[in-house]
Amino acid sequence: MLNFDFHNPTRIVFGQNTVARIATLVPADARILILYGGKSAEQNGTLQEVRAALGTRRQFEFGGIEPNPTYETLIKAVELVRQEKVDFLLAVGGGSVIDGTKFVAAAARFADDPWQILETFGGKVSQALPLGVVLTLPATGSEMNSGSVVTRKSTKNKAFFNSPHVFPQFSILDPTKTYSLPARQLANGVVDAFTHVVEQYLTYPVDARVQDRFAEGLLQTLIEIGPKVVHEPADYETRANLMWTATMALNGLIGAGVPQDWATHLIGHELTAQFGLDHGQTLAVLLPAMLDLRRNNKQAKLLQFAERVWGITTGSDDQRIDLAIEKTRSFFTDLGVKTRLSDYGITADALDGLVGQLEAHGMTQLGEHHDVTPALSRQVYAASL
Amino acid sequence: MLNFDFHNPTRIVFGQNTVARIATLVPADARILILYGGKSAEQNGTLQEVRAALGTRRQFEFGGIEPNPTYETLIKAVELVRQEKVDFLLAVGGGSVIDGTKFVAAAARFADDPWQILETFGGKVSQALPLGVVLTLPATGSEMNSGSVVTRKSTKNKAFFNSPHVFPQFSILDPTKTYSLPARQLANGVVDAFTHVVEQYLTYPVDARVQDRFAEGLLQTLIEIGPKVVHEPADYETRANLMWTATMALNGLIGAGVPQDWATHLIGHELTAQFGLDHGQTLAVLLPAMLDLRRNNKQAKLLQFAERVWGITTGSDDQRIDLAIEKTRSFFTDLGVKTRLSDYGITADALDGLVGQLEAHGMTQLGEHHDVTPALSRQVYAASL
Repeated sequence: MLNFDFHNPTRIVFGQNTVARIATLVPADARILILYGGKSAEQNGTLQEVRAALGTRRQFEFGGIEPNPTYETLIKAVELVRQEKVDFLLAVGGGSVIDGTKFVAAAARFADDPWQILETFGGKVSQALPLGVVLTLPATGSEMNSGSVVTRKSTKNKAFFNSPHVFPQFSILDPTKTYSLPARQLANGVVDAFTHVVEQYLTYPVDARVQDRFAEGLLQTLIEIGPKVVHEPADYETRANLMWTATMALNGLIGAGVPQDWATHLIGHELTAQFGLDHGQTLAVLLPAMLDLRRNNKQAKLLQFAERVWGITTGSDDQRIDLAIEKTRSFFTDLGVKTRLSDYGITADALDGLVGQLEAHGMTQLGEHHDVTPALSRQVYAASL
Repeated sequence: MLNFDFHNPTRIVFGQNTVARIATLVPADARILILYGGKSAEQNGTLQEVRAALGTRRQFEFGGIEPNPTYETLIKAVELVRQEKVDFLLAVGGGSVIDGTKFVAAAARFADDPWQILETFGGKVSQALPLGVVLTLPATGSEMNSGSVVTRKSTKNKAFFNSPHVFPQFSILDPTKTYSLPARQLANGVVDAFTHVVEQYLTYPVDARVQDRFAEGLLQTLIEIGPKVVHEPADYETRANLMWTATMALNGLIGAGVPQDWATHLIGHELTAQFGLDHGQTLAVLLPAMLDLRRNNKQAKLLQFAERVWGITTGSDDQRIDLAIEKTRSFFTDLGVKTRLSDYGITADALDGLVGQLEAHGMTQLGEHHDVTPALSRQVYAASL
């Protein structure tokens, strides 16, 4: 096991009818900015519940945070925060709203050009406004971690930062808030959570038994509930398990003391920035090819994945790995997420541009061995066509 | 899944050569009391390392905290804290030292009779001194939770309290610090961690899939490493896995959103208080009989335990449960922990006294269904003879 620090101070309030708990979690004298995305938060009544729970506190609102939140949009929220002397941020939504809120929290207390927050991957962040979360879309894990992904529209740059100052103080996880989500977002959420686990698990063995067992447990759970989440009417227990699994998939715990990969996420970002694919779609497209092309360096863990997660115990090493990758791809397609670039109208013509952007963004030595070069990334894109 | 709150702000610093990190984790101007147990912390050099890391900070020391720390001893530490205006506590040891330090932290800031802290199970604790931990004995999980068990010597009362104010601010977990532990303490630690998991897992199903998988992963890990921990020379990876497993077994995570039992622990406390059995010994003695006698209410989870943890897939329901309990008992005995009261010289004559003490301490409706009455506890003690 590798040495590690683990510290996650976010309070999780989990269950039905928990939105009202905001009343006791936000300071009584706070000046609050509620941040949200599109119209669903209003339509499904969550925003109304939030406003009621906040009572007589001074409330401001900033809607319209888009999927893959943009710097250009968020900077407007930062202006509002400064203008109205807001001292507490409340994100109501999924990963994009929460990531955006974290950026606003850091930028509002940042003296220099806020783009530097992303350029320095959060290293220059020394303070941030406190923030809370009401989660409506289980997927990214942002509700219980200190990371944020922000896109600069003008340069098509999907950047990210990390800072302990942007851990949410609390996150309300009410599974019933997911009932109105469309199947596409649910499916993307399952793929995202699955891939988060894989990025922290499918590297090389360091005898981290608890982390491995926990990762496998999350993957098994997603495999069990994924089809039900997407294809069946909402039921509480399934949504509750989805929500808790997605949170645990990226709150630092299963990644503590183990090598991490993240190449699939990072080369996937270019597909979103250039072609507008959903984040989950980029992962479903790239992960199978990524595992296939890196099977030598990942062999021991791929075999463990095949056996413990997919129950594959017979065949040669390569056959078991092939089958595990095939089952992973089928899992994604059965959720309704297409796993080929061609399914999204992307052809070999795009490869040069994608690899060029990876190089422009410094994404040239990715993965747990830093051996995912632009040449290998090109192979992954090509094998995903 | 049941509704739950989860909040665990303890920072874990895990790995080799991490004791020196205290230098940055304790405030530079702190007046520190180092609390420890017997001579081992001095002999194995850990105390020296701690003193060096604290540098020129004003340091006081309080040694001699016994296994099953007593109120009578801890009150002396409280006096020292007040006298020397100590403002930070540093526990160097295992669960007993940490539990004791938590009590000192709360008692030093408690206006009334400190025994009330335990009488109210922590409910009256509204503040506490900050504390940190250097863990030397993996077992109780106290290094990452807010619970504490304290014994009143004069009344043989093993009492406990919980308060969010006594979460350690940080815990240093260096697996090499366990190298000098005797086999008996290591074996007790494995049994304790195993039983912590069982108390939160072997109740009744609430479709909490992540919690179940995590619990099963911890049990599987203990089964894999337990014999190696006890019977083979110390090696880093095994001790690292033991340490992290024991911490995760009782930091609130696997118990969030599920029913909990704790009857084995609570009726075990009387064996320690009256006959001086090690805590781990009491669990090894009582758990098999407890599971056997409550098999009807626990049937679904016992079958899941049999299949997923012990790999038992054939036989009738009762046969599978019998075998799972038998394997659990053998696991304990193979670690060198005896599982019969008679092994410790306790006979049927003791039953009246034990049950009388349970009644005197209000332990009359234990377990996830509150149906572990004194009569059932008597049966468990009797079946453990």
